[in-house]
Amino acid sequence: MSAVGEHWTVQVDKALRGRNDQFAADNRAHFRTAGVFVLNIVSSPGAGKTLLLERTLAALREELRIGVQVGDLQTDNDARRLSGHGASVVQIVTNGCCHLEAGMVAKALESQPLGELDLLIIENVGNLVCPASYDLGEDMRIVLVSVTEGEDKPLKYPTIFRNAQLVVITKLDLVGPAGVDLQLLRENVRRAAPQAHLFELSARTGEGLMDWYAYLRRARSGQAGAS
Amino acid sequence: MSAVGEHWTVQVDKALRGRNDQFAADNRAHFRTAGVFVLNIVSSPGAGKTLLLERTLAALREELRIGVQVGDLQTDNDARRLSGHGASVVQIVTNGCCHLEAGMVAKALESQPLGELDLLIIENVGNLVCPASYDLGEDMRIVLVSVTEGEDKPLKYPTIFRNAQLVVITKLDLVGPAGVDLQLLRENVRRAAPQAHLFELSARTGEGLMDWYAYLRRARSGQAGAS
Repeated sequence: MSAVGEHWTVQVDKALRGRNDQFAADNRAHFRTAGVFVLNIVSSPGAGKTLLLERTLAALREELRIGVQVGDLQTDNDARRLSGHGASVVQIVTNGCCHLEAGMVAKALESQPLGELDLLIIENVGNLVCPASYDLGEDMRIVLVSVTEGEDKPLKYPTIFRNAQLVVITKLDLVGPAGVDLQLLRENVRRAAPQAHLFELSARTGEGLMDWYAYLRRARSGQAGAS
Repeated sequence: MSAVGEHWTVQVDKALRGRNDQFAADNRAHFRTAGVFVLNIVSSPGAGKTLLLERTLAALREELRIGVQVGDLQTDNDARRLSGHGASVVQIVTNGCCHLEAGMVAKALESQPLGELDLLIIENVGNLVCPASYDLGEDMRIVLVSVTEGEDKPLKYPTIFRNAQLVVITKLDLVGPAGVDLQLLRENVRRAAPQAHLFELSARTGEGLMDWYAYLRRARSGQAGAS
């Protein structure tokens, strides 16, 4: 709504997005050539990305060679949490940037050879807005939304839901304690993301995790559409 | 980390922030002249900004003339929730912009005369990153962090905590069910925001709300430092 410089901002924004799209296209070509399936996981801070990843690495490490890229403004807490699960983990510190960009992923790949991976999971910066606008070259964008965030979030942050192939409702064990209307949350996910497959789980209790692992296996072998 | 255009981006960013700072200084001058105390409330999506505001309006409407500006990417859900509590509520739809800027607040003031207010509460877009960089001209920046987001958030999103005068830990009723280490969360808030006053409350059960109202009354009458 700032009048001055608005046109300029839009132009710059377009140029930067265009540059990101080039990097994303390059990434996508490299992923395809190497036969690596790539997930881009986005959510609010604290929706449970890292815990779900810990569980997933522990469950699938024997059958898949998994790489993880973790985006954070600062700290390598998440990378430290995720190491020791048999995956190759690279921390991307964005130095305050509120989202990952395709160029950052490309740079991280320099220390993570694609030939050694079957599955690459990118944990984006915790932010339900900005990561929506940056393609990383992934095969599948996954939005996590915790039941504790309230039923209305899919309607309030529509862009990120509209561009997701998969929506995962997390912290299912807190539906009762938080007094959440799960049915309403589901309906709002369906309205904001009619194209997306929907999962519901609790990484803490394990509820729903077997279906999640099965979905990832099918997706990785190209059968996600058949699920 | 993208090499091309980096210098350009930094220059543009500087120019835009400079422009915002001018608007913020103007806002601040208007607020002072009108004797209106102004809060800028920031948090992740779903940390409980709107419910806390509903409670606050209901409790203080008899003693203070309160205005609210609500920032959202899309939808006017929050403004609708907040109307009917005796406050003047203006919705700012940012059309996808991930934070409020001082110019947006100035424009909203056109339909919200400062002469009719004692207290203006600005509910920022749900985002723990970008709003940190945009001064709106407020007297006090308040970060809400829900216990369900996990203990590490103050360390992972340091900028927004470092610039806060007040940190409010919300959803205290979910400490047990979510298995949160409240003491560790407190310590991390103190590390990330040693300058800030700390509150803990549950807008759902009412725990801590009386202290919160008392603090706002003192802050509004210029005695916040004495609390």
